[in-house]
Amino acid sequence: MTDRNHDHHYTENVQSHLKKVEALLSKHALLEDVVHRQELPREDRHALVDTLVHKQNLAELGMFIDGLHAADIAYILESLPIEQRSLVWSLVKPERDGDILIEVSDAVRESLIATMNRDELRAAAEQLDADEIADIAHDLPQNVLRDVFRSLAVEEREQLRAAMSYPEDSVGALMDFSMIHVRDDVTLEVVSRYLRRFDELPDHTDQVFVVDRNDRFKGVLPINLIVVNEPETIVRDLMLTDTIQLHPDDKAEQAAQAFERYDLVSAPAIDEEGRLIGRVTVNVVLDYIRNESESDVLSLAGLREEEDIFASVWKSAKNRWTWLALNLCTAFFASRVIGTFEGTIEKFVALATLMPIVAGIAGNSANQTTAIIIRSLALGQITQGNARRMMLKELAIGGFNGLLWGSIAGLFAYVLYHNAALGIVMTSAMLLNLLVGATVGLAIPLVMQKLGRDPAFGSSVMITAITDSGGFFIFLGLATIFLI
Amino acid sequence: MTDRNHDHHYTENVQSHLKKVEALLSKHALLEDVVHRQELPREDRHALVDTLVHKQNLAELGMFIDGLHAADIAYILESLPIEQRSLVWSLVKPERDGDILIEVSDAVRESLIATMNRDELRAAAEQLDADEIADIAHDLPQNVLRDVFRSLAVEEREQLRAAMSYPEDSVGALMDFSMIHVRDDVTLEVVSRYLRRFDELPDHTDQVFVVDRNDRFKGVLPINLIVVNEPETIVRDLMLTDTIQLHPDDKAEQAAQAFERYDLVSAPAIDEEGRLIGRVTVNVVLDYIRNESESDVLSLAGLREEEDIFASVWKSAKNRWTWLALNLCTAFFASRVIGTFEGTIEKFVALATLMPIVAGIAGNSANQTTAIIIRSLALGQITQGNARRMMLKELAIGGFNGLLWGSIAGLFAYVLYHNAALGIVMTSAMLLNLLVGATVGLAIPLVMQKLGRDPAFGSSVMITAITDSGGFFIFLGLATIFLI
Repeated sequence: MTDRNHDHHYTENVQSHLKKVEALLSKHALLEDVVHRQELPREDRHALVDTLVHKQNLAELGMFIDGLHAADIAYILESLPIEQRSLVWSLVKPERDGDILIEVSDAVRESLIATMNRDELRAAAEQLDADEIADIAHDLPQNVLRDVFRSLAVEEREQLRAAMSYPEDSVGALMDFSMIHVRDDVTLEVVSRYLRRFDELPDHTDQVFVVDRNDRFKGVLPINLIVVNEPETIVRDLMLTDTIQLHPDDKAEQAAQAFERYDLVSAPAIDEEGRLIGRVTVNVVLDYIRNESESDVLSLAGLREEEDIFASVWKSAKNRWTWLALNLCTAFFASRVIGTFEGTIEKFVALATLMPIVAGIAGNSANQTTAIIIRSLALGQITQGNARRMMLKELAIGGFNGLLWGSIAGLFAYVLYHNAALGIVMTSAMLLNLLVGATVGLAIPLVMQKLGRDPAFGSSVMITAITDSGGFFIFLGLATIFLI
Repeated sequence: MTDRNHDHHYTENVQSHLKKVEALLSKHALLEDVVHRQELPREDRHALVDTLVHKQNLAELGMFIDGLHAADIAYILESLPIEQRSLVWSLVKPERDGDILIEVSDAVRESLIATMNRDELRAAAEQLDADEIADIAHDLPQNVLRDVFRSLAVEEREQLRAAMSYPEDSVGALMDFSMIHVRDDVTLEVVSRYLRRFDELPDHTDQVFVVDRNDRFKGVLPINLIVVNEPETIVRDLMLTDTIQLHPDDKAEQAAQAFERYDLVSAPAIDEEGRLIGRVTVNVVLDYIRNESESDVLSLAGLREEEDIFASVWKSAKNRWTWLALNLCTAFFASRVIGTFEGTIEKFVALATLMPIVAGIAGNSANQTTAIIIRSLALGQITQGNARRMMLKELAIGGFNGLLWGSIAGLFAYVLYHNAALGIVMTSAMLLNLLVGATVGLAIPLVMQKLGRDPAFGSSVMITAITDSGGFFIFLGLATIFLI
């Protein structure tokens, strides 16, 4: 993104801005309230709302918003309930609409776009670069997208088409096209003169890319090297050739890891023929990593996507259904496992009080294993060479913890019910179920990964299903054999 | 960190390097195996291992490692079991030890440091900048730290002392001291001449900082502006003054959010008197965000810290204890809640089969709420103004889902046991417990945050405790009243 917001002030504490907006909004709401309470006929009320005071109030809010960075306005919009959000959005100057639509979360963008008509949307989209239009394309109505496409120059159309063709989690989706390229046979003096023709360089231009006459990538020339070297140096003698090259079809996660490992600010994206087609910058990578990590936390809880915190109850409830439905099925299954042993429980009701302990601890222990595996998978640390070793280790930890906590639980059962056999059944069931937990806690994310799915999503529901049903079966089964 | 690794080659696929190292290691292990199988006396075996072939083998591995970037070596060390890790570590050239110790995870760093003696450690630490020494200081033995401190220049001692004085999650802990500052009354020509005196600029120098004669911060001068403007321009006329300023006592998370919002590459750190004391760069922020997000996933599962995946069973088991112990306590409590209703269960054993459903669904629903709240808290989106509103919304979702899934579960109970009253008790208990879940799912992370603690850590254990015990109490209580 080019730095269109240079004139807006930065802040360390955007929360204070949000408070200010909330205060201005509640002043506004108070006024509307007073007007409404007077129970005037509709038209008169409307006239009164339109008083000078009211207008001043909104004007003050509008001016305040005007002074904020697009990212801060996005944050404020995300933090406001729908009707206040729409009010603030209507106060944003149309020429900033595009920038802000880029900054807000997907869920909130949808709610903003819903308030805009075709012309407004087209105007907003036309303020954006091709790669940015691609980012919001799936939220735009078809006819708007067609209008925007027609309004673009040929080169930009190509870029938009390219950017939209890459899957969401690929390098191509992170790419932008604002890179500067130079030839390798010129001097730094020439490069400097070329750069001086820009009013300002594209954001995150820490290096220019060196290409041959066929646009084939040759190397990079860091701006800092231009600065510290003599103007008569030839680019070829100074450029770095042994640098990272991304490919648009690579996984985005690979690019993110490269940025982390090699402390990059920008990196070139090269097609199969070795041509420079775009670049990835660190700000996009930062957003990608933040998004991924949020989606890990959410998908561990079985939420497919981020939620607008002020989305309707109906919309939010739906977002949570897949998981709860699946959970209900596995709970029904576990319930039937217990049902099989109704006769045993009838004879020895203490079993009903103790069985949730066996199931619960193993479930938690398995989730710990999964958390560690998910992290190691994210870092690419698990190989065929060490997977077996990790399995053995997790089994050992499960066995060790099973003996330790199983003994404590067995003692608890013995003390409560004065039955030594019950204590031993309890301990054995805990040990066995923790081993089951270690196995599934490791196996499920590994299998999910192998199947090309997100190892975090749904792991926990399957693990709980197995440790619950397994725990009930092992405990009640052992009890049926040894206690009845 | 200064770019000491410019000569090492970059790669998009570090996994292939790991495979290569593993292959070389297994060739090595095979050889040792053959030697051992021959059952020679100890000394002869030793002699044989030291054959030329063996040496060549290790030399090949050493040379391969030599060609890798420090971050890639760190990744390989993290992915190898302890004994192979030590072998590879011993092949790393001593002059690269410092860089690699900075790159590896805390847990793995500990295992590497354990293999090094005092002189090796001092030599490694002396290769680092003051802010880097501070990062690994807590892993170094006291006497090594003292040696290193003595070897530093006065200015660096001050920097080290300062860097070590800031808490782990503050801006001060992210800060480095490799910033370039210039005065505001000179021309770009003078700045350029000054910059040319460096062989290369410190990493991530996208801007130089403008200070007055008392080191007081005045503004920033982006390198790109130096490049695009005429050499005779005065710094004062070009520098940006309305830019973000960090303070070493600020929360690191605030700095991270500023970097994300404003797409920064570096930002100045200023003390209370307005003096420039350091800078924060985007690579450090990237690592911080990755670490934080990993620790969120881990702490949701009750793991205090990252684990070396090849740590001993004993060490890993201990890392998981706090959580399991807490979990066992809450499970005992839930068990006693059921125990109170033993009489009811004895009379109506179907209750024992159905009660885990009531507890489980509410627990999962509450964890979904918590995941969303944790995310919103991380983004600073929850204010006093909207907290009440969110509470109402989560209760509405809980009520809605309670009716929906409660009805299905009630139907399930009715179909199984042909008892309409049981179905109604089931539905009511699910509804009530989902409301309990919504309340605690929202309240617990908010209260944790208010108390200044990590809202993710332990939230889930408390939520499960309440939805389990609550679910059993509500379901069995209603059953006692209406069914018996």
